[in-house]
Amino acid sequence: MDLKEIAKILKCDFSGENFEVTKMNTLRDAKKSEISFVANSKYIKEIQDSNAGAIIVDRSTKEFVPKDTIALVVDNPYWEMATLSKYFAPPIEDETLAEPKIGKGSVVSPKAEIAKGAVIGENCTIMAHVYIGANSVIGNNTIIYPSVSIYRDCRVGSNCIIHANTTIGSDGFGFATNKMGEHRKIYQNGNVVIEDDVEIGSSTTIDRAVFGTTLIKYGVRIDNLVQIGHNCVIGEHSVLVAQAGISGSTTMGRNVVMGGQSATAGHLNIAPFTTMAARSGVTKSINQSGLTFAGFPLMEHKLWLKLQAKIARLIK
Amino acid sequence: MDLKEIAKILKCDFSGENFEVTKMNTLRDAKKSEISFVANSKYIKEIQDSNAGAIIVDRSTKEFVPKDTIALVVDNPYWEMATLSKYFAPPIEDETLAEPKIGKGSVVSPKAEIAKGAVIGENCTIMAHVYIGANSVIGNNTIIYPSVSIYRDCRVGSNCIIHANTTIGSDGFGFATNKMGEHRKIYQNGNVVIEDDVEIGSSTTIDRAVFGTTLIKYGVRIDNLVQIGHNCVIGEHSVLVAQAGISGSTTMGRNVVMGGQSATAGHLNIAPFTTMAARSGVTKSINQSGLTFAGFPLMEHKLWLKLQAKIARLIK
Amino acid sequence: MDLKEIAKILKCDFSGENFEVTKMNTLRDAKKSEISFVANSKYIKEIQDSNAGAIIVDRSTKEFVPKDTIALVVDNPYWEMATLSKYFAPPIEDETLAEPKIGKGSVVSPKAEIAKGAVIGENCTIMAHVYIGANSVIGNNTIIYPSVSIYRDCRVGSNCIIHANTTIGSDGFGFATNKMGEHRKIYQNGNVVIEDDVEIGSSTTIDRAVFGTTLIKYGVRIDNLVQIGHNCVIGEHSVLVAQAGISGSTTMGRNVVMGGQSATAGHLNIAPFTTMAARSGVTKSINQSGLTFAGFPLMEHKLWLKLQAKIARLIK
Repeated sequence: MDLKEIAKILKCDFSGENFEVTKMNTLRDAKKSEISFVANSKYIKEIQDSNAGAIIVDRSTKEFVPKDTIALVVDNPYWEMATLSKYFAPPIEDETLAEPKIGKGSVVSPKAEIAKGAVIGENCTIMAHVYIGANSVIGNNTIIYPSVSIYRDCRVGSNCIIHANTTIGSDGFGFATNKMGEHRKIYQNGNVVIEDDVEIGSSTTIDRAVFGTTLIKYGVRIDNLVQIGHNCVIGEHSVLVAQAGISGSTTMGRNVVMGGQSATAGHLNIAPFTTMAARSGVTKSINQSGLTFAGFPLMEHKLWLKLQAKIARLIK
Repeated sequence: MDLKEIAKILKCDFSGENFEVTKMNTLRDAKKSEISFVANSKYIKEIQDSNAGAIIVDRSTKEFVPKDTIALVVDNPYWEMATLSKYFAPPIEDETLAEPKIGKGSVVSPKAEIAKGAVIGENCTIMAHVYIGANSVIGNNTIIYPSVSIYRDCRVGSNCIIHANTTIGSDGFGFATNKMGEHRKIYQNGNVVIEDDVEIGSSTTIDRAVFGTTLIKYGVRIDNLVQIGHNCVIGEHSVLVAQAGISGSTTMGRNVVMGGQSATAGHLNIAPFTTMAARSGVTKSINQSGLTFAGFPLMEHKLWLKLQAKIARLIK
Repeated sequence: MDLKEIAKILKCDFSGENFEVTKMNTLRDAKKSEISFVANSKYIKEIQDSNAGAIIVDRSTKEFVPKDTIALVVDNPYWEMATLSKYFAPPIEDETLAEPKIGKGSVVSPKAEIAKGAVIGENCTIMAHVYIGANSVIGNNTIIYPSVSIYRDCRVGSNCIIHANTTIGSDGFGFATNKMGEHRKIYQNGNVVIEDDVEIGSSTTIDRAVFGTTLIKYGVRIDNLVQIGHNCVIGEHSVLVAQAGISGSTTMGRNVVMGGQSATAGHLNIAPFTTMAARSGVTKSINQSGLTFAGFPLMEHKLWLKLQAKIARLIK
């Protein structure tokens, strides 16, 4: 799809040379052939450093777009980004892709569905009612239990175990909302990558990135019924206990422990070796590593214990 | 099943003319050919206005039943309602129904199961390991990802997306308990209706109504691992973030936002344009629209911020 | 596998007679032909009473092992127990087992997968996309809805109902962690037993025991999205409301009620007829039966109401 077609969809003009647009992306990650957008004034400072070939902006932001980058001026850039995202969504399945490849020694249940373009490594066990989507790649020695669904374009490493009814790569919860309170889907055209030696429990959900990748690093342990939002990064050997919820774009260092039913807000950084007790609610980034927290709002665990003692006295 | 048979099952007598009973229903919704019950004295005032042909009551409530309505007097009306509900439950599947209909342009995986009596609209994508129950109806252009289960008698609108491993129409959590602490299932003979342009995440559960309908209105957005109890109504364009839980019979207006891990008690009304922060716990109805709440117990968000500041001082 | 081979895997010596080791087990439950371990000094007092034929210990614990029991001395007994657990794990499926048996009157969807060695009782309904693992046994008149996965060696009683997308018997969340922060899986070689007349909602997860059994007793009612950890015991007629989470090795008496989104820590005892309000967080055992609790930290419900009143005054 070239820029002229995009301008037509968004009902706007542009000045500059038309080019084939390969992808939508963030300001930070976009390449010359890609299109980006500015939907929030806090990102204006990133425009200067973006390599995007074209940027969707509103009237007031146009002046910040460098001369060699094409500006597409619209009323509501976030809404129009949502509009456009649909055009960059690949088909859910693609009959033109190659037959799936199954590595030596792998056992795939005849009741599993392996989509075209998928690749399964060696010595894997793919059980009944599993779905592995187009172009998804599974490493070696990985066990995928019944009714696991892995959407297209995802990667699962070697020596992984994924338990029943878990979903990898479903759409992140992304939409634009207009003044009428109506929502428009932002197609989630990124993916999920799970590195080697990861174990994931049952009925856990890991959303695909809107752009780029939701990343579960080497050695992570995830329990049952855990929610991981789009574009999260879970550091090596981190441990997420049952019913924890990690909101979108949060990044954890290695060996972070999230207790049962704990949760984080989105867009946070959590330092390595941080431990969160059960039910913790994390609303700010944690910069110092090695500490233990509890409570909502979050505080150091030893403070939380003191607070509970004070509250106990309140009752008397 | 006629009233005589019912009286026999419930081991009670009745005076009045026998009739064919078509359904069990609430006092409010029951028609002349239907049977209802009073299990709680707060519903006594609704007896007068009910059109039910017969009502199951205990001895003390009998006097409130109008002359032209038949009273079935039992010791424990709630328990006997549970007893009777089983007799009104349709079979899970029904081989006598018509072959399922698949609309033009729809792609149904050979590994999906479409029960007899089901109807799929046009241009739908029904992926592997999906189950669509008897008499359920799917609109046009709807995408249903792998391992979604839709029980019998439900409706999903057009332009909907339902992500993997989600369950629509499983039984609401309903049972009667006797003095011995034993439970008897209340068969959930209602359904779920999902209107057009709704997106539902993965591993979300939406329970069918005990009578009537659990209703998800136009344009709603539901994230992963959300629980919606029986007989809820979720208003247009409402947004339910991951791991939220909505207890039975709660009704929301349009554009309500429930943050991650938030929850409501049952039988509440929540005004349109209400926003609940993450972890909110709603125990009372909200009548004024447009406000933002937080905390458990719930309070206005600005008060909650003040309270947290006071609590922070407590620690020092 | 005999003790010599085990000593070789663990790179340790032993003195005493070699024997065929049939199983790993806890100190309390191990028989003469079984091997156990001591990974925490608080279990030292149980060594004396253990019938284990051999015990994995560290240097400092060796002296507590009785003369007629063989000690295997290693640096990190918990880590080595994890190492060894893999060797006692049965295969996920086993082609040498007998063809599955289906009782009279049972209807099994051709799209369900019943593994070899499984036994289905009479008059059951096993719907599409169900998985029932090796040697698992289902009673009579039980209904299993679509995409339920039951792992190997589990038992489900008669007159049970299990709703869609629920997982029974997936691995408990067990691993050893070394000083480098790396995790090693503890294979969960126990099972899940569900007694008669139990109903379980959709997308609920019940983990198999590491040794022994996770037990759901007669008449229990479990809602949607509930997490039950390995080695829990849920007492007769207990009620677990949606999104509750029960951590590993917690034992409940009969008729315990856990409200929505409530949770317990692990290794607790909860007295019969205890009621926990929604969102309760239980961190200590409850010895007196018949009480009602709320809050996190947990307190009696009437105290919690008082506390909330005081907190409300704090805001003013």
